[in-house]
Amino acid sequence: MTSKEKQTLRRQVAKLLVIRASGHNLDSLREYPQWELPNYQLQKLLEDGVGGVILHGGTFDEIQHRCAQLKSWSSQPIFLCADVEEGVGQRFQGGSWLPPPMALGMAYQKDSEEALKLAEEYGVSIGREARQCGLNWVLAPVCDVNTNPLNPVINMRSWSESPNAVKELTSAFLRGLTNQGVLGCAKHFPGHGDTSVDSHLELPVLNNDLPQLKDRELIPFKALIKDNVSSVMSAHLFLKKIDPIYPVTFSKKVLTHLLREEIGFQGLIITDALVMQAITKNYKSINSSSMAFEAGADLILMPEDAHEAIDSIVDLLISGRVSIRRLEESLERRNKALKHLDNSTDSIARKSHNPYDQASQEKEISCLSRKLIDISLECRNNIDISRFSRLINLIRVDDFHANSIVNRSSPALNIPHELGCINFITHSLGVSPWQNNSDEPLALDRFGDGSFLLQLFVRGNPFKGDAALREPWIQAVKQLQQNKRLAALIVYGSSYFWNELSAILEPSIPAAFCPAQMPLAQKKILEILFGSSIESEEFLSQSQFEFIN
Amino acid sequence: MTSKEKQTLRRQVAKLLVIRASGHNLDSLREYPQWELPNYQLQKLLEDGVGGVILHGGTFDEIQHRCAQLKSWSSQPIFLCADVEEGVGQRFQGGSWLPPPMALGMAYQKDSEEALKLAEEYGVSIGREARQCGLNWVLAPVCDVNTNPLNPVINMRSWSESPNAVKELTSAFLRGLTNQGVLGCAKHFPGHGDTSVDSHLELPVLNNDLPQLKDRELIPFKALIKDNVSSVMSAHLFLKKIDPIYPVTFSKKVLTHLLREEIGFQGLIITDALVMQAITKNYKSINSSSMAFEAGADLILMPEDAHEAIDSIVDLLISGRVSIRRLEESLERRNKALKHLDNSTDSIARKSHNPYDQASQEKEISCLSRKLIDISLECRNNIDISRFSRLINLIRVDDFHANSIVNRSSPALNIPHELGCINFITHSLGVSPWQNNSDEPLALDRFGDGSFLLQLFVRGNPFKGDAALREPWIQAVKQLQQNKRLAALIVYGSSYFWNELSAILEPSIPAAFCPAQMPLAQKKILEILFGSSIESEEFLSQSQFEFIN
Repeated sequence: MTSKEKQTLRRQVAKLLVIRASGHNLDSLREYPQWELPNYQLQKLLEDGVGGVILHGGTFDEIQHRCAQLKSWSSQPIFLCADVEEGVGQRFQGGSWLPPPMALGMAYQKDSEEALKLAEEYGVSIGREARQCGLNWVLAPVCDVNTNPLNPVINMRSWSESPNAVKELTSAFLRGLTNQGVLGCAKHFPGHGDTSVDSHLELPVLNNDLPQLKDRELIPFKALIKDNVSSVMSAHLFLKKIDPIYPVTFSKKVLTHLLREEIGFQGLIITDALVMQAITKNYKSINSSSMAFEAGADLILMPEDAHEAIDSIVDLLISGRVSIRRLEESLERRNKALKHLDNSTDSIARKSHNPYDQASQEKEISCLSRKLIDISLECRNNIDISRFSRLINLIRVDDFHANSIVNRSSPALNIPHELGCINFITHSLGVSPWQNNSDEPLALDRFGDGSFLLQLFVRGNPFKGDAALREPWIQAVKQLQQNKRLAALIVYGSSYFWNELSAILEPSIPAAFCPAQMPLAQKKILEILFGSSIESEEFLSQSQFEFIN
Repeated sequence: MTSKEKQTLRRQVAKLLVIRASGHNLDSLREYPQWELPNYQLQKLLEDGVGGVILHGGTFDEIQHRCAQLKSWSSQPIFLCADVEEGVGQRFQGGSWLPPPMALGMAYQKDSEEALKLAEEYGVSIGREARQCGLNWVLAPVCDVNTNPLNPVINMRSWSESPNAVKELTSAFLRGLTNQGVLGCAKHFPGHGDTSVDSHLELPVLNNDLPQLKDRELIPFKALIKDNVSSVMSAHLFLKKIDPIYPVTFSKKVLTHLLREEIGFQGLIITDALVMQAITKNYKSINSSSMAFEAGADLILMPEDAHEAIDSIVDLLISGRVSIRRLEESLERRNKALKHLDNSTDSIARKSHNPYDQASQEKEISCLSRKLIDISLECRNNIDISRFSRLINLIRVDDFHANSIVNRSSPALNIPHELGCINFITHSLGVSPWQNNSDEPLALDRFGDGSFLLQLFVRGNPFKGDAALREPWIQAVKQLQQNKRLAALIVYGSSYFWNELSAILEPSIPAAFCPAQMPLAQKKILEILFGSSIESEEFLSQSQFEFIN
């Protein structure tokens, strides 16, 4: 092979890569510089033929300009994708952030027809905003059936615990998404719902055999493939009964024999991010891209090093271990998906902002959010705030960097503050609220006198493992009840965590749950819980409570 | 006066207003919605003739588009200004953030010539970035002589404690700024350096008489006025010996008799923000704009309600209490300042980003930052990390929303973490690190065994009052020293706070101070302090320390 032929081959292989970039266009604003290339390298890779970019971080406004910039750096059509499973606002500030899919699963149990309508709206609203940003590929829906309540990474990202509900809801979602001219992605094949390990941290091992998978996990994937979903993402799982040697992402048995041949999927197979520790803890980065390609993946998501990834696949092809025909097939699938994209996307995205339009669209989506919050929240009793001489508003979040949930204008902080509560935030880097006493784990002396309003933001968040569940909240709730110091409890996020807590909660304690964590959900819940206190202006003006902050 | 004439008058008066807007163009991203109008109101006000906007929040990229958008909503040239005293990055993420002016005052003591060169560079770099954003008016330099070490709001924002140093340094700064084609602003007239009260929270009262002011406070203002500074901002101070009735912003004696007539300032007089509590706690919003105008202000910054402000000034003019000629004079000064602006500003700002240029510019400014950090930091001894079996990295910040200082990639968190320290962040909303014991205020049991690396981010921050100084850090340092548990101490920010602490510090304790708080300063200080430990790779791989986070 001449050096020129090799150069051509490298350019073809580069098309298979989807590399990571920050949504901010300034290098200094990258939030994860270990994964996000600086602009001069990014531009070079796109000029050299890299075929896709996954974006993370930045604002709605920035991402529009960023997408246009990335396109301008490439001489070919490229994929611009993002993990916006719950709305563009989940990754890009100022986009809409909807309640998690599980909220729709809960609605489905009550009224399946209404839930399916909402799931389609959910797809429409994400698809429309993604397209307006300049994205052409939404890495959703999650098709995993969340059969393990301790699942630390899928959890509320799943649409349901029932295979049939997941199937129906994701089909409706995909219909909505596709109508907006963006691609979707069924993930994480063949099903990541039955794990208790976060694949961002470790490689989960599953005992399920093929008949078990077919009975449960595969149902939604097969349905979406029938509905012509454009892509399927491989899970970083080790299915020891199906492939005792390789994890799914590197498994020919799973990707080629099962997904491509037996199920007959004709679209794009993309790996989950190769920088995840499920892979990096067990495989050298130099091998992972070529192993995934050899197993049957068409596209390689977030290889640790793009040049290394290209070289290793080129070597594989030159060695003859994988045929050039296989490369051509992957490229044909890529072309087909790109062609499928609505040509109108560009012109719509480039349309300049009109504040009135923007406002009306924000309103429409917050209307969907409101609906989903309303149908999924639970609330018992009201707080009669006049009963308490001092109320401690203790907010629990994962970490110090939880700005999308708790910031200066968050209702979780501001509504209780206006009612005279003393605010506390506890997070992984804060001074501990815990003492060494398993019966009375909460160190009450660190908060002063008074009763607690507990606001617990807990859901399975990637990279967090089961941090929240290791904190002794159940015992703390018991302790506060015994001391008659629990004024109210709110859980935002995991219904599993809520179920555990509500099982031990005294029926008279005001309590509420919502699967959503965003400010809109906080406002709704607090307005219900504090209902009468908020309405009584007299209370506000006469309040004798301390004000801090 | 006919209704049409009144309409025309309203439009003229509207030009005097400088209203507040978020740098984000989405309403949902406003960080201070109580002060930042939604877009439909902002657009309407600009269409109706409002003459200026002060911007806050958003990223460098967003602010470029925002400025263009605001201009497009107006049919006249407008002022676009921001409080970017320490760089565009102080208000807009991704811009450069330089060490505070006091760092240059410290340099001035050692080498005045070098300091003046750096002060001019400081002005050039802020002016250039501001212009690239689309801003045409930088609300700097602070001309206040920081004579009160307890000043909670000026503090490190001041260039020096010496009137002459402030005069020289601000003149050099203004020269740099002006060369870049943006306007400057000498503030806060007649000098806010001798207060112990934050005018964001209360109206400070000063005892100085006119001869005292002339001997000290007025020196830098007079020099800048001689240098043709475009504008002067009034302080919200009550100078009881000079005007026993009105605070400066409403005082004809100060604004007209002293500043305009006696000192002979021909440029724009602008009020400080009228929403500050120094004003709102003492005056009704309906009166404040007209009182400021009547006293001699040309421009009204951040009135609580723009319509009310316009109406009240129109009424004042119609009543004849203030002549139409006075309005015309203010408008002439406004026109003159706008004409003075470099016409090239627009075309430069609209130039599209080239990542290479951006990178080289970031490099140049970080080079200035580095220089300023180098000349202003102090460091005693190195930490020999092998001496400690467990090191607690306790970071103190003002509040939970301190992202510009401590975020995911901050050296203050990451360098100690990589060296095996256990990270803690304490802030106003966290679980308290304090116990009720004035000799031993730090509750050591909340941190586990081990020695402390204290990283204290403390400087006078507007709105924070003297929060940091109310925390018993001096006693805590004594306590840790007595218990042999102080491994090292770092102060980022206030040299006054540092001086207090270093006075009681045992000479053998490794310690460092830097007036700057940004990541670059953190990295520099930690690299010096941990020097040998960072270089020893052996240490890193053999580390037996716990890792959290």
